[in-house]
Amino acid sequence: MAVYQATTSAPVNIAVIKYWGKRDTKLILPTNSSLSVTLDQDHLRSTTTSRADPSFEKDRLWLNGEEEEIKEGGRLATCIKEMKGLRREFEEKNPSEPKLSSYFVHISSRNNFPTAAGLASSAAGFAALVSSLAALYKLPASASELSRIARQGSGSACRSLFGGYVAWEQGSKPDGSDSFAVEIAPQSHWPDMHALICVVSDDKKGTSSTSGMQRTVETSPLLQHRIKEVVPARMAAISKAILAKDFDTFAEITMQDSNQFHAVALDTYPPIFYMNDVSRAIVAVITEYNRIAKEKTGHLKAAYTYDAGPNAVIYTPKENVKEIIELIVKYFPQANTFSDPFGLFGAQGVGAGAVPEGFNTAVAKAFPAGSVKGLIHTKVGDGPRVLDASEALLGPDGLPKA
Amino acid sequence: MAVYQATTSAPVNIAVIKYWGKRDTKLILPTNSSLSVTLDQDHLRSTTTSRADPSFEKDRLWLNGEEEEIKEGGRLATCIKEMKGLRREFEEKNPSEPKLSSYFVHISSRNNFPTAAGLASSAAGFAALVSSLAALYKLPASASELSRIARQGSGSACRSLFGGYVAWEQGSKPDGSDSFAVEIAPQSHWPDMHALICVVSDDKKGTSSTSGMQRTVETSPLLQHRIKEVVPARMAAISKAILAKDFDTFAEITMQDSNQFHAVALDTYPPIFYMNDVSRAIVAVITEYNRIAKEKTGHLKAAYTYDAGPNAVIYTPKENVKEIIELIVKYFPQANTFSDPFGLFGAQGVGAGAVPEGFNTAVAKAFPAGSVKGLIHTKVGDGPRVLDASEALLGPDGLPKA
Repeated sequence: MAVYQATTSAPVNIAVIKYWGKRDTKLILPTNSSLSVTLDQDHLRSTTTSRADPSFEKDRLWLNGEEEEIKEGGRLATCIKEMKGLRREFEEKNPSEPKLSSYFVHISSRNNFPTAAGLASSAAGFAALVSSLAALYKLPASASELSRIARQGSGSACRSLFGGYVAWEQGSKPDGSDSFAVEIAPQSHWPDMHALICVVSDDKKGTSSTSGMQRTVETSPLLQHRIKEVVPARMAAISKAILAKDFDTFAEITMQDSNQFHAVALDTYPPIFYMNDVSRAIVAVITEYNRIAKEKTGHLKAAYTYDAGPNAVIYTPKENVKEIIELIVKYFPQANTFSDPFGLFGAQGVGAGAVPEGFNTAVAKAFPAGSVKGLIHTKVGDGPRVLDASEALLGPDGLPKA
Repeated sequence: MAVYQATTSAPVNIAVIKYWGKRDTKLILPTNSSLSVTLDQDHLRSTTTSRADPSFEKDRLWLNGEEEEIKEGGRLATCIKEMKGLRREFEEKNPSEPKLSSYFVHISSRNNFPTAAGLASSAAGFAALVSSLAALYKLPASASELSRIARQGSGSACRSLFGGYVAWEQGSKPDGSDSFAVEIAPQSHWPDMHALICVVSDDKKGTSSTSGMQRTVETSPLLQHRIKEVVPARMAAISKAILAKDFDTFAEITMQDSNQFHAVALDTYPPIFYMNDVSRAIVAVITEYNRIAKEKTGHLKAAYTYDAGPNAVIYTPKENVKEIIELIVKYFPQANTFSDPFGLFGAQGVGAGAVPEGFNTAVAKAFPAGSVKGLIHTKVGDGPRVLDASEALLGPDGLPKA
């Protein structure tokens, strides 16, 4: 008997123009367009296996081995239902295809990074879910079409359907049919964009982005100005900068938009804070690093951005990564060994860090070891990948492999 | 021979609608109106003695016993020159008056609180300077007229020329003649407004407000929206709330405007942060305190506000002060004894603090002792006072008393 199964992986993406606010909370339609860089699945990925089988008694899903309830009308159920709908259309046009749309599915998903790290795991997760079902169902749908479905799982998931540099066009139609992701430029256009993720320790539970962003929509007088005036101009300018591989403009807009996202969070009532003293110190260090770079070379070298949490993501051309890691380690001594996936440091490891010549060390104090609890070095990456059957996460019994 | 000398004291004021941005940096003309509560000089004050004497060889000024240079064309020189100009007009109209405007002055000024505490000492200082010269010169000028001169020393100083609840009308004339302070309501209108200042320890030197606000004017896209749309409506609404003694509205606008000031600071490029993790935790604690108050009584009990530094000022009706001190002390254990000027706690002192019933203690962690390094309990107060000669800060020799 045939086994209908597919396994895919999907990447994390980190926005440089931030998504914050929905105009439709059910369909997940945003109040502004956003733009992100897709990170490399070789380092951070969500892998998902989906199987359809006439013997299954209901749709079931496991995340990192734990079964999750698929709530009626919830985000998971919506994505699965939409994908089955596309399969049904496909079957109607191709009557010889098996009727997979009528079978229940079993889905097993794993992230290769801790969910607790606050690395937008839901974006990679829903992108992997949708692309594994698309592979299972052999759908002819484009990545943009699939992104419209992933969007209904988690807004920013739509951007993980593409590699490289990706815009989520907000659209204007009430049904959301024009709210999807498009590729601004592929990974190959500007492959030297690297990213250093500083995983920041936090002892305070932050406001969830789902509830936080709607509180901002309801109470921040500044958000409307951001939506109407600021973001459209920034989307155009940063897209142009990406096409021109103009890192200075890319960096400036990235940092400004991160700042502004946190500004409207603060303008919310009661206010929302995601950045803490460690996050602020990283801003101060990168600001000083850019100041001396500009003074010496006329160019910026790094761009920080912060999502709805204290972690910093630092985008930089690859030639600066080593210097930046040494700088970060100097202020934020590491408790764990840096994994060094690009082999920058050799056998002796990072060491105690260093600051570039001319750097004003007074811009921040040195923090206790573990304040930045981990560093992840990665780079711009590709879109979802269809994986070999050997990487499947479901066993022959249709249940997650141990 | 006659001694021409006067001593006055002037209060600190803490804004509830924040001043941030100048449209004219020389005349100190703001980009938006602002509003403050004047605090009681019984607790926080700047005292200044001014003397005019034909034997003096130049204008001289001492701050806390240290001589300060009066720079040509600087803020001190401008205020002294403007005051001498008013005296000259007065002498022209009253020819029998001594020609004090032709004499040099010696000025000695002291704050009764540490300058390092970040308590807007320049506002009280320039208000005391201008009012001591007004007393010395026996000027018939109104407080609003004097505020126009104090404004040129330090913008927010203009608001310290009045007690109670004070607006600084931004004005629109290029010469600044319509940019001055007016009284919204005297201290006696709403005398039960108390204030608790939490002096927060900070190991980072913040951006000065003078340079910071102009960077915001130059780089924050959100500031213009705040100036044009948000502040005018808030000025009207909070003035009305003060006249109606409507604490709920007063508190909500106060907190929202503090949040928004820090939001536009963050929207500045590079961003400016004044609040730190301790400041943020105080926001979380007061937010939770208000949440349970609202649940139990339908009303808010406290309003936080933060100037260009990490200190919190908490406005509250006097009946809540004891409860708030206990709450703050619970999260931020004190290293020093609380001075308790209103005698709330008796001989046993504050103790270890307490949280009100129903308070969700998880909103913040307890901080190490000294994170809030001092608490100052004060209340709404009166405007500048003319003091007795016995309180003079200049000796018979025209130099500061030891």
